[in-house]
Amino acid sequence: MALSRRPDLVREFLAQQHLDGWIAWRPDEILLLTGHLTRWNVSLLFYPINAPPVLFVPFLEPRDHLPVGAKIVEYPWGDFDCADPFPILKARLADEIRATGASASRVGMLHRSSRGTLAVLAAENSPLPADFGDQIAAMIAPRSAAAENAFLDLFAIKTPEEIASIRLANRVALIGLDAFERACVPGAREIEVAIAVESAIALQTDVGEVFYSKGWAMVQSGPNSAEGGMFNRSTGRRLQSGDLVLIELATCVNGYWSDLTRTIPVGPGPLRPELQRVFDASRRAQSAALHAVRPGAVAGDVDAAARDVVHQAGFASFFTHHTGHHVGFRYHDPGFSIVPGATETLAPGMIVTIEPGIYVPELGGGARTEENVLVTGAGREILSAPGG
Amino acid sequence: MALSRRPDLVREFLAQQHLDGWIAWRPDEILLLTGHLTRWNVSLLFYPINAPPVLFVPFLEPRDHLPVGAKIVEYPWGDFDCADPFPILKARLADEIRATGASASRVGMLHRSSRGTLAVLAAENSPLPADFGDQIAAMIAPRSAAAENAFLDLFAIKTPEEIASIRLANRVALIGLDAFERACVPGAREIEVAIAVESAIALQTDVGEVFYSKGWAMVQSGPNSAEGGMFNRSTGRRLQSGDLVLIELATCVNGYWSDLTRTIPVGPGPLRPELQRVFDASRRAQSAALHAVRPGAVAGDVDAAARDVVHQAGFASFFTHHTGHHVGFRYHDPGFSIVPGATETLAPGMIVTIEPGIYVPELGGGARTEENVLVTGAGREILSAPGG
Repeated sequence: MALSRRPDLVREFLAQQHLDGWIAWRPDEILLLTGHLTRWNVSLLFYPINAPPVLFVPFLEPRDHLPVGAKIVEYPWGDFDCADPFPILKARLADEIRATGASASRVGMLHRSSRGTLAVLAAENSPLPADFGDQIAAMIAPRSAAAENAFLDLFAIKTPEEIASIRLANRVALIGLDAFERACVPGAREIEVAIAVESAIALQTDVGEVFYSKGWAMVQSGPNSAEGGMFNRSTGRRLQSGDLVLIELATCVNGYWSDLTRTIPVGPGPLRPELQRVFDASRRAQSAALHAVRPGAVAGDVDAAARDVVHQAGFASFFTHHTGHHVGFRYHDPGFSIVPGATETLAPGMIVTIEPGIYVPELGGGARTEENVLVTGAGREILSAPGG
Repeated sequence: MALSRRPDLVREFLAQQHLDGWIAWRPDEILLLTGHLTRWNVSLLFYPINAPPVLFVPFLEPRDHLPVGAKIVEYPWGDFDCADPFPILKARLADEIRATGASASRVGMLHRSSRGTLAVLAAENSPLPADFGDQIAAMIAPRSAAAENAFLDLFAIKTPEEIASIRLANRVALIGLDAFERACVPGAREIEVAIAVESAIALQTDVGEVFYSKGWAMVQSGPNSAEGGMFNRSTGRRLQSGDLVLIELATCVNGYWSDLTRTIPVGPGPLRPELQRVFDASRRAQSAALHAVRPGAVAGDVDAAARDVVHQAGFASFFTHHTGHHVGFRYHDPGFSIVPGATETLAPGMIVTIEPGIYVPELGGGARTEENVLVTGAGREILSAPGG
């Protein structure tokens, strides 16, 4: 695997697109470009081709994890004495573009994006004006689909530093999944199990390299597990012996994401044979797809590896979603999905989920296992394997 | 207080704006118009003036808390066999507009909105296309600032049913704040205190009338409490005797929001006298502002009631934010803020936060108390008072 540095990849992208610079403000874009986790989600980044990146941070932003090597420019968002900080931000942005010698007509940005990461400091969306993107776009180059696509391609191959960060997110997630296994006892409520997992993850805050750690655990048991292919939520239902229990777990550590699922049977009683068949088939499908992950593998073939097993087990119509997607800068990264017929190929440095599932309402249960898998030069590394 | 029903208020708004209907898709807008908590945040509502509202829900949406009295129309978002569900949604929307006899050129919507509520089912933003609003807008009436402002005005006065729901959110939040008081012991980490609070709130899921309950607790202790006026987060710092500990707590119950803050000293040792003065002044400011809340009170006067106390205590430059804002459909509702010079007046049915704060880095501490206060016909009711 080429040991690429992110700054080199960004400047290579800019040069290929004949751009003097790039503007980003969505949290996952800033994370990709600088490794920085924004807190208020009102930061903005200007990344010139020939100078260090310039990060515009609001007056209120914490100052203890700003990106090393970037120029930091404050603007007065959150300053009680400033009625409208955005004209000031735009003026400072124009100044910085000029200062690097860049031509504003050769600065690009991503116009389209919807499924970004959340603001981490508050229980609501980013407080940017709804037309913020349009306001910034009016300052720079016309929209270019080619440049936008090339920028989105940057999300697919992770650098060694990013892989380390996503590995850390998976290690923290596994601490949560240990708590899941301990909490799945008859009589426990789904929401109690979810709380145990989220608590175990949050407790890693400020432990070792971790300065931000948050999990979103969604636990579905018994008949609710059959809804695991549609939506994820934890209810007040109490686990019973003989249930399948499914957890969908999103974990964000220092800005980087893991996306995992586990399904376990609740003892002490055995699973009913038909649920055991669902469970076993989902595990075999998972194993088949994992073994198909290697550099050069076609995404549709990885999907087929899982789907064929499910089909042969007689559950074809109950595997109702993709086999996987890219992950790391978001809970769901941009890029191709691992679905029937997908022609894209896996390459070293990609991190994808592998998550076949089977959900049979008539049988009162569903099962899915989801791993996060790094494509290596030689094959694969399961980042979410215990001890991994 | 006029006992208004929300449907009457919505139809009155439409009639005054000479509109045949209104379209909404942001979660807080749909909550306002129908009381419905969307899960995937890809639902869309058409509210005609002369027929029941039509809620377009994705294939994947849970079906157990859909709004009573609304027409439900499914569209295939999340259906693995559907490549692009949005043209189908738009076609069905056009059909429903026609079916009510509405003229599309007399249907309005809110174009501008940025600080909405989060998606509750997933750890990321709504998966709608970034230009979704523009696509819908192209189908209906031209943009009208007057109609948008009138729609936003609908958020300010809550109906009796909504007040009951926001009271419930506050009662659940108080369960979290009880956990906060118990958890604030020397040696506890900020993140542990936050987890205790969030867990207590989540445990209310499916208890009594509560079907969704989630808290976001941000705990800042000792010197970190002096940053409480800038941002909110929980770190790994351990509480010490003599600390001030501040919690900022957002709580969402069944879609409705509470926004509370408490500050308490950690025993067994006493507060240093200078921190005691900060604490006492913040409490007196809080009490003064609360007593100023009544129907007809001018928002700027409520702010002055708090700010004068802080000024007289010698901390004027350390009260760095508003005294309050509307709350209930969001963590921060649209509408006027309670700030210096604000000329708007309080009216029965409004619910506002009252939250003066004092943060003095040089003294190593800060303090804020935040209540949610209903303006009544006679004066006020503190929804966040214990036993309230």
